[in-house]
Amino acid sequence: MSVHDLTRKLQRKNDSKIVLLVADGLGGLPLQPGGLTELETAQTPNLDALAQRGTLGLSVPVLPGITPGSGPGHLGLFGYDPLEYQIGRGVLEGLGIDFDLGPNDVAIRGNFCSLDAAGNISDRRAGRIGNDIAAPLCEKLDQITIPGVEVFVRHVKEYRLVVVFRGEGLGGDVDDTDPQATGVPPLDPVARTAASEKTVEVARQFLAQAREILKNDHPANFLMLRGIAKRPPIPTFEEVYGTRAAAIAVYPMYRGLARLVGMDVLDAGQTLDDQMARLKQAWSDYDFFFIHFKYTDSTGEDGNFEAKVKRTEELDGCLPKIVALNPTVLIVTGDHSTPSKLRSHSWHPVPTLLAADACRFDGSTSFGEAQCRAGGLGQFEAKYLMPLALAHAGRLEKFGA
Amino acid sequence: MSVHDLTRKLQRKNDSKIVLLVADGLGGLPLQPGGLTELETAQTPNLDALAQRGTLGLSVPVLPGITPGSGPGHLGLFGYDPLEYQIGRGVLEGLGIDFDLGPNDVAIRGNFCSLDAAGNISDRRAGRIGNDIAAPLCEKLDQITIPGVEVFVRHVKEYRLVVVFRGEGLGGDVDDTDPQATGVPPLDPVARTAASEKTVEVARQFLAQAREILKNDHPANFLMLRGIAKRPPIPTFEEVYGTRAAAIAVYPMYRGLARLVGMDVLDAGQTLDDQMARLKQAWSDYDFFFIHFKYTDSTGEDGNFEAKVKRTEELDGCLPKIVALNPTVLIVTGDHSTPSKLRSHSWHPVPTLLAADACRFDGSTSFGEAQCRAGGLGQFEAKYLMPLALAHAGRLEKFGA
Repeated sequence: MSVHDLTRKLQRKNDSKIVLLVADGLGGLPLQPGGLTELETAQTPNLDALAQRGTLGLSVPVLPGITPGSGPGHLGLFGYDPLEYQIGRGVLEGLGIDFDLGPNDVAIRGNFCSLDAAGNISDRRAGRIGNDIAAPLCEKLDQITIPGVEVFVRHVKEYRLVVVFRGEGLGGDVDDTDPQATGVPPLDPVARTAASEKTVEVARQFLAQAREILKNDHPANFLMLRGIAKRPPIPTFEEVYGTRAAAIAVYPMYRGLARLVGMDVLDAGQTLDDQMARLKQAWSDYDFFFIHFKYTDSTGEDGNFEAKVKRTEELDGCLPKIVALNPTVLIVTGDHSTPSKLRSHSWHPVPTLLAADACRFDGSTSFGEAQCRAGGLGQFEAKYLMPLALAHAGRLEKFGA
Repeated sequence: MSVHDLTRKLQRKNDSKIVLLVADGLGGLPLQPGGLTELETAQTPNLDALAQRGTLGLSVPVLPGITPGSGPGHLGLFGYDPLEYQIGRGVLEGLGIDFDLGPNDVAIRGNFCSLDAAGNISDRRAGRIGNDIAAPLCEKLDQITIPGVEVFVRHVKEYRLVVVFRGEGLGGDVDDTDPQATGVPPLDPVARTAASEKTVEVARQFLAQAREILKNDHPANFLMLRGIAKRPPIPTFEEVYGTRAAAIAVYPMYRGLARLVGMDVLDAGQTLDDQMARLKQAWSDYDFFFIHFKYTDSTGEDGNFEAKVKRTEELDGCLPKIVALNPTVLIVTGDHSTPSKLRSHSWHPVPTLLAADACRFDGSTSFGEAQCRAGGLGQFEAKYLMPLALAHAGRLEKFGA
C-alpha cells in the first residue's frame, strides 16, 4: 500500500490552507569545518521566528547519497515517489519551455548538428550556433507535416530545441539518434518496445523532411533526437490529496512540473513581490499553494556563497506577507541542496521547516542545517512531506480503527 | 525479505524476559511553543531512572503523517506491518467485546435502524435506543439458525451490535448494507469476490429472519450490516519470534488484538495493581509480557492535559513492581500519540524507552518527547521495535556469516 493509496482513502476536506514555499537548492555547506552554511549565515529573522513556532527536519530528496534533478526533487516534495514516477528528459525539456504536454505527446530534445559531405557528424552541436540562427530554423522545421500526427518544433536555446509528436498510439521507448561521437552518421531511431514502432516511423519521416529542409543551412544542416519520452501517467493532486492546488512559479520548468501533477498554474509575474500579490489574490480559491523561488539554486550553481546568502535573505523578507494570510500549515524547504562550495545540486538532506498549531514544537530557535538536524521531523524521505502537511492541516482521517 | 522472515530464521531461545508496557496514546504535545508535553510535565521518577539506564527514541506507528487507530497502532508494536495486516471494522468490533474470533468467522458490525411502512430507512440508528432495549433484541436475534453455519449476535452498546457467521467457505469481501442515507431501503448484501458468495447467501437468510423477528420492535425494527470482515491470517508470536507471550490488558479491544497474534490472554483484573499482581504470578510461565494501560489515551481524547499528566504519574508508580522482577528488556511506549491539545489520536511519533543491559546508553536523563528526539533509537518505524526487543534480549542470531 503506497502513500497515495493511504491519502486517497484517508483524505478529508476542510477549510485549511497549506503553503509550500520551495527555495530551490536551499541546502548548503559550510566552506570550512566548523563554519556556517549559506542559510545559517543569512540574517533570516522571519524564518527564525517561524522555526520557533514550528518543527524542523531534514528531507532526503530521493535516497541517501542520491542527487536529484529538478524533476525528481519537486516530485518528491509533491509526494510522488521520484523512483516510481520518472520523467524523461524530453518531457522535462518541454516543461522547461512551458509547452503544455498532453497524454498523447511524445517529447524529444533536439540538437542541431553539422554533417559533412559524406553524411557523417562533424560537430554534435552545430558550432554552438546562436539563438538568432537557430530560432528561424526551428520555425522552418515547425512547418513539417506528417499524416496522422501533429508536429511541434520549438526553439530552446542556442543549438537546442524541443520536438513534440502528438497523436494516438505513440510510445516513448525510442533510442536516441545521437551516437555521442563524430565521424559517424546519426543513428536511425530504434524502438525498444513494439508500442513505440509508430513513433519510430514518425521520427523517420520527420528526420527525412528535416534533412531536406536544413540541407543548405550548414553548420546546422541536420538535427539529432534525444531523451524521447512520454509524460508518465500521474494521478492529480486533487485525486490523491483532495486539495485544489495552485502553483505560483516564475520559471517554466517549475510551472511545468506543477502542471504535471494537475495544479493550476497561475500567472506569477517576475518577482517575489509579484508572487506574493498573486498568492493574496488567489487565497480563497485554493487549499494548497506551491510557491517557487529559483535564486537560491542559481547562486549556488554559480558557486557564489555571498549571493546565495543574499538571496536567502531576500526570501526571508517575503515571509511576513505569507504569514499575514494565516496559513494553517506553512512549509519552507528546498527540492534539493545546491551548496555553493560544490557549484552543483547535491545529495545533502534539505532543511525543512513546518509551522502549524498542531506541531510538536521542538525548541528550535532558528532555521538552518544544524538545528534541522536536531529537529522534530528527523531525517525523512521527501515523499512523506505531503502526508505530514495534510496531517498538520487536519486533512487526513485515522487509518484503521 | 520481511522482518518476520528474518526473525523466523534468526530466533533463538533463552531464559530472557521481555516486558512491553504500552501506555495507550502516550505521545503528546505542548500547549504552546516552548512548553512541555504531558509526559514531560508529569513527575516520573521511575521512568526517568529507567531512561538513564536505557536508550530512548521515537516510533512512527505507520508512516509519517499517518494517524493510526488502535488496531494498526498495536500491530505495529507487535512487529506486524500495519499496512500489510489490515484488520476489518467488524473484526475490531468483535475483538472489542472479547469475542474469540476464529479463522472461519466473518465478523460484522450491526446497527439497529428504523424502517417506515414502505420499508425505507427513517432512522439509521433506531433513535439511538438504550442498552435496556437493544440487549434483549440481540438475544432474540442470537436465536436465529441458518443451516451449515453458526450464528452469533452480541450486543455492543446502544444501537450497536456484532454479528458473527462461523462456517467453512465464508469470505469477508461483502459490501455494507447501510446505504448511509434515509428514505431508501437498506441495501442487499453484495459480494466483491466469488469467495464471498456464500457469505452473501447467509447474510440474506439472516436479514430475512431478523426482519420477521424485529417487525414489531419499532424503532429498532431492522438492522444493517457494516464492516463485514474476516480475521486476516496472521502468524503467531510464537512462530515469528519463538516467544511464549502473554497479554495483561483490562480492555477487551487490546485483549482481542493480543489474541489475534496468538498471545495468551490472562485475567488482568481492573487496575494497574491487579495487572502487576498478575504479571508477578505469571512471570515464570512466559517469555514476553504485553501490559496495556488505557488511561493516557482516554484522558488525551478528553482534551484533559492535567488528567493525562496524572495518569502518566499513576503509570510511573507501577514501574518499581516491574523492575523488581528484573526483566531482561523493559520497553515503555505507546501505540500512537493522543495529544490532549488535539483531543484525538495523532500522527506524532511516540516516545519510546528501551532498558536493557545490552543498551547503548545515550545519556538520557528523563523520559519525554524532547529527550526521545535525541535518543539512541532515533526515529524508527514501530514495526522494528520487536526485533530491537529480541536483539536486546539475546534472542536473535547473527544474520549471515
